[in-house]
Amino acid sequence: MPWRLLSTDADFEREFVALLGAKREQSADVDAAVRAIVARVRAEGDEAVIALTQQFDRLELTPATMRVTEAEIDAAYEETEPATLDALRLAHERIAAHHRRQMPKDDRYTDAAGVELGSRWTAVESVGLYVPGGMASYPSSVLMNAVPAKVAGVARIAMVVPAMRGALNPLVLAAAKIAGVSEIYRIGGAQAVAALAYGTETIAPVAKIVGPGNAFVAAAKRQVFGHVGIDMIAGPSEILVIADGENDPDWIAADLLSQAEHDTAAQSILITDDSGFADAVAAAVERQLKTLSRAETAAASWAEHGAIIVVPQLDDAAPLSDRIAPEHLELAVEDPEALFSRLRNAGAVFLGRHTPEVIGDYVGGSNHVLPTARSARFSSGLSVLDFVKRTSILKLGPDQLRELGPAAIELARVEGLDAHGRSVAIRLNL
Amino acid sequence: MPWRLLSTDADFEREFVALLGAKREQSADVDAAVRAIVARVRAEGDEAVIALTQQFDRLELTPATMRVTEAEIDAAYEETEPATLDALRLAHERIAAHHRRQMPKDDRYTDAAGVELGSRWTAVESVGLYVPGGMASYPSSVLMNAVPAKVAGVARIAMVVPAMRGALNPLVLAAAKIAGVSEIYRIGGAQAVAALAYGTETIAPVAKIVGPGNAFVAAAKRQVFGHVGIDMIAGPSEILVIADGENDPDWIAADLLSQAEHDTAAQSILITDDSGFADAVAAAVERQLKTLSRAETAAASWAEHGAIIVVPQLDDAAPLSDRIAPEHLELAVEDPEALFSRLRNAGAVFLGRHTPEVIGDYVGGSNHVLPTARSARFSSGLSVLDFVKRTSILKLGPDQLRELGPAAIELARVEGLDAHGRSVAIRLNL
Repeated sequence: MPWRLLSTDADFEREFVALLGAKREQSADVDAAVRAIVARVRAEGDEAVIALTQQFDRLELTPATMRVTEAEIDAAYEETEPATLDALRLAHERIAAHHRRQMPKDDRYTDAAGVELGSRWTAVESVGLYVPGGMASYPSSVLMNAVPAKVAGVARIAMVVPAMRGALNPLVLAAAKIAGVSEIYRIGGAQAVAALAYGTETIAPVAKIVGPGNAFVAAAKRQVFGHVGIDMIAGPSEILVIADGENDPDWIAADLLSQAEHDTAAQSILITDDSGFADAVAAAVERQLKTLSRAETAAASWAEHGAIIVVPQLDDAAPLSDRIAPEHLELAVEDPEALFSRLRNAGAVFLGRHTPEVIGDYVGGSNHVLPTARSARFSSGLSVLDFVKRTSILKLGPDQLRELGPAAIELARVEGLDAHGRSVAIRLNL
Repeated sequence: MPWRLLSTDADFEREFVALLGAKREQSADVDAAVRAIVARVRAEGDEAVIALTQQFDRLELTPATMRVTEAEIDAAYEETEPATLDALRLAHERIAAHHRRQMPKDDRYTDAAGVELGSRWTAVESVGLYVPGGMASYPSSVLMNAVPAKVAGVARIAMVVPAMRGALNPLVLAAAKIAGVSEIYRIGGAQAVAALAYGTETIAPVAKIVGPGNAFVAAAKRQVFGHVGIDMIAGPSEILVIADGENDPDWIAADLLSQAEHDTAAQSILITDDSGFADAVAAAVERQLKTLSRAETAAASWAEHGAIIVVPQLDDAAPLSDRIAPEHLELAVEDPEALFSRLRNAGAVFLGRHTPEVIGDYVGGSNHVLPTARSARFSSGLSVLDFVKRTSILKLGPDQLRELGPAAIELARVEGLDAHGRSVAIRLNL
């Protein structure tokens, strides 16, 4: 049974805090194992990657066969059904169009004192893209990670994807081809992350690594962070639907299940001002669950982490939503814009009754890599900004140095930094 | 003796790689100790913070005396010399003016298909600002961390600063007052980071923690990351000066020493096309070193990590600079703009002979919190962007759902996600 909370109950606050704090993920302690793998790949390069791939993926590789060939990629693309290719191309086009608007602009100006200031943005030179194997090997995620990098101007995107016993998902290769991924290697796990971070004889190192993965991949990303950049560590999916009683309960039930089916640790929450509607959605979820191919996963997620919260009026949903800070937020209400203007913390918002969250997973154009586990309080979804960096610019002439210099010298003095002061004073003959 | 490399030497590449890879920081393994402190503060709140402050800072606190009073802050401000206050206010004004230009703009548009898309930026609700005690307690750093947060619209900035035996740097309090910091607590170390992340009876939790600190603070920030956001983990300072032979060697020597005096692990590098000039700078460094109050620190940094690289022509400096990816980059050459256009990886650039890096430390207006340890390859200095987060927006009507829906259903099908497909299909009566 999912959680059921009534915001007017005396112990609502306690229950809500318990819901917020409930641990959904078992964090396996793989740090030591991953540390050993990273050290080995760093020391032995290709040889270590090949041995570990044999051990974990049951696949024999050589330095020459590590990389997926152009012919293999083309073959995967050719064998993809036209309807699927069309859908991938539509998604690609829409994601690219949206992300092009995110490109930050350089800024260069001269202020009243005559000082030239500015910010210049440049692309990260090379990016590694991790794609999981097995059930979570999604072509849509390839697009969502690779397209912002391409739009940013990243010259080299090196993708890694584990091939258990040699098997690769052809759709992942097709998506990589559509997205313009430069290189693909059939390796995975912590060894692939280490190879991307430190390089091997076959794989040149990258400057940043993005993409989802299991506990080993997440631990490896944390460990190489600093030497290379990483994106966020993604947790299990979440959706919060705020809905009034005017919705079709079956629509909302389907939306809740669309996240629940991802993972037993996923979380789907409904907030509504209509207790009867809440009951109807709960019943619809039970009905729809039965027909899902991932029924077991979805049922476990819904029973353990699902929640229905009834509030006296929809306005009461806003502060609760901000505390949940959901990855995905659907506003299936009469005036979604008004409600949205009162909200602050959400990775992505889906406005109105005709915008199921799933559109954002695939073809809306916005990114589906979004902050989970309440991190929308302080972070954002993946964007072009994750693949560029900024250099700040200062340029003074002798006049400007004469004007600003004394204040710098004074602050260096009180901070006890003699050479700081001198580097200014010496230019002013002070 | 600093490193001395000649880019035309046969073993230059090997030496340059050694320079890049040389470990400058001893990373003390404080993880276990920090883990215990964080757990204790999380469990016991104020009581743990008070006990740990007694133990580490030799200071008796109560929940009532933890917070620095308005009267204390005002007194610190009043006792600050007018010249210092003027310098702090000038710095504040210039930093605020520059950072106001960094505020990202919301974007909302309707595309050709009639789909509404957008990005909305909102400020992080509350931020914790760590300020170190002792030698590294810099008022300028208070401004550099607090001002971007204020400009972003952060409503609450809670500052922590350790007060060894009760002593606080009045200039840090004065800078906090000028910057508009909301609350100041006289606590430090891992216990202060834990208190900010999880809250205590006296200190409300924040959503993000920024600011420099020692190994304990850095480890604590890493450990609470995920529960709250953190900024980068700053390493020792670095400067790369690219200079032609037309500079005054004493000016360049002062610039190199301005970073060396920060820390024995700091690194100052000169690249020049003039071997005689290189010698003159080396001699000037030795001369100037003698008169610094931090002579010992600067000498150790210069001897162990300092480097002079001579190249046949200045153009050869560009690829080396990008591999170094310096925190601070001074271009003391005839045409700094031309050289800058050929460079990619640097936290901040200082153009021309009259822009010593120190101007950027204090009063230039740009931020002095910048990526170290080659992380300018993939990250940027602190900015307003670090204190806002983005919600992506999608809004479809029935027509748009009819147009885009089938592609989403197709991608859900090939990814094996039934409920994903259903949440779209059910709205289209498919």
